[in-house]
Amino acid sequence: MYALYYWPTIQGRGEFVRLALEEAAAPYRDVARESGRGAGVPALLHFLQGRAVERPPFAPPFLVAGRLIVGQTANILQFLGPRHALAPHSASGRLWTHELQLTIADLVAEVHDTHHPVAVSLYYQEQKKEARRKAADFLKNRVTKYLGYFEKILSNVRGHHYVLGAKLTYADLSLFQIVAGLSYAFPNTMARASRRFRRLFALHARIQERPRIAAYLASARRIAFNEDGIFRHYPELEGPLRIK
Amino acid sequence: MYALYYWPTIQGRGEFVRLALEEAAAPYRDVARESGRGAGVPALLHFLQGRAVERPPFAPPFLVAGRLIVGQTANILQFLGPRHALAPHSASGRLWTHELQLTIADLVAEVHDTHHPVAVSLYYQEQKKEARRKAADFLKNRVTKYLGYFEKILSNVRGHHYVLGAKLTYADLSLFQIVAGLSYAFPNTMARASRRFRRLFALHARIQERPRIAAYLASARRIAFNEDGIFRHYPELEGPLRIK
Repeated sequence: MYALYYWPTIQGRGEFVRLALEEAAAPYRDVARESGRGAGVPALLHFLQGRAVERPPFAPPFLVAGRLIVGQTANILQFLGPRHALAPHSASGRLWTHELQLTIADLVAEVHDTHHPVAVSLYYQEQKKEARRKAADFLKNRVTKYLGYFEKILSNVRGHHYVLGAKLTYADLSLFQIVAGLSYAFPNTMARASRRFRRLFALHARIQERPRIAAYLASARRIAFNEDGIFRHYPELEGPLRIK
Repeated sequence: MYALYYWPTIQGRGEFVRLALEEAAAPYRDVARESGRGAGVPALLHFLQGRAVERPPFAPPFLVAGRLIVGQTANILQFLGPRHALAPHSASGRLWTHELQLTIADLVAEVHDTHHPVAVSLYYQEQKKEARRKAADFLKNRVTKYLGYFEKILSNVRGHHYVLGAKLTYADLSLFQIVAGLSYAFPNTMARASRRFRRLFALHARIQERPRIAAYLASARRIAFNEDGIFRHYPELEGPLRIK
């Protein structure tokens, strides 16, 4: 039984871990979403404050597996991958999967910064002006670079369904979340992108239909996208629909 | 013989890899700094453009080792660690080392954003106003949080010299670079921090004195800090010395 610790009201970075656990049908507690003694946000903060923990994580999400505490989203996925057949067997394949995941993590950080370019400690409304400039650059220059990169990787494994080839890995699940999240945050941009990055959107559709993922998405365990998370829908950041 | 590919005129993210290779006394070419056929920046771009490469990296640095191409700084270090006794033997120790490295990577990204909060494609001068706000928040809220975290980890291995305990790992080399870079970029802040985070600064001094690192730092292979890299000294971003 794993114990996942993440903020209880958002998908955030924790969602990349949840998707892997759900696809693996791995038993896990989502501790900060539970109530009672030893649960909820206080249980999460207990680890972060690091008293009586020799190797405290810097931030959520982190996963407790027996006596092991694993922090950093990509590191958690790297830990889970081989245990649940969500990573290749070869060392080179694992490095490549992890490399893709770290590039996904970079993209996630840039998405976050479209609404928080100045400070995580300030509200969006306090950095709205900077956010407009940041988001404009992100939509003009960055998102296409990232999506184009993943599309290219998918085209390199032509004839196969997943980013590593024939077999599903945690990187595919994370790419599903990227497409889902960006489509929520920037629907106009992604409507256009869907015609250009067909393999990536086909991957999203394929993951969405996997039985365990479909069941998860339909369950109360999947938190809805909202404006406290990483992928936020602020129409003013995307601007009007530009036909291109 | 490894081949490292990174921008030739800055330390940047490539420096974390260079430090590991130097400490390991591993033979390597720093390809983009060489001239001639198959070298220089064109050789780097050849990989990035991804023609004839099935698994192209998204961005430098990347390391070529035989037929393997490994991208993403933390992933390269994870690859090099066990090969050169710069990572622990146990799986849990390796996960923890990598977790620390990913937190260092997050800090590096935040440092970069102090001078480029809006867009990597624009000059600093084009986002100076936003940079002032970003840097002020970084210096007020973020840098202390990160340095305090690493100081705490060092205090948890009390009696030992390195962040994992008795043995040096690549995370120690990266923490050296963090202290060196921040001290260049924000000298006043770091002068104050040196009194507060004594273990971290002692680690920096200890790494600096290791024979291979000392030889490297004194060599032409070590590029000087400059205002094209990640750690930039723009006095206006730090503001006047505030006695605290």
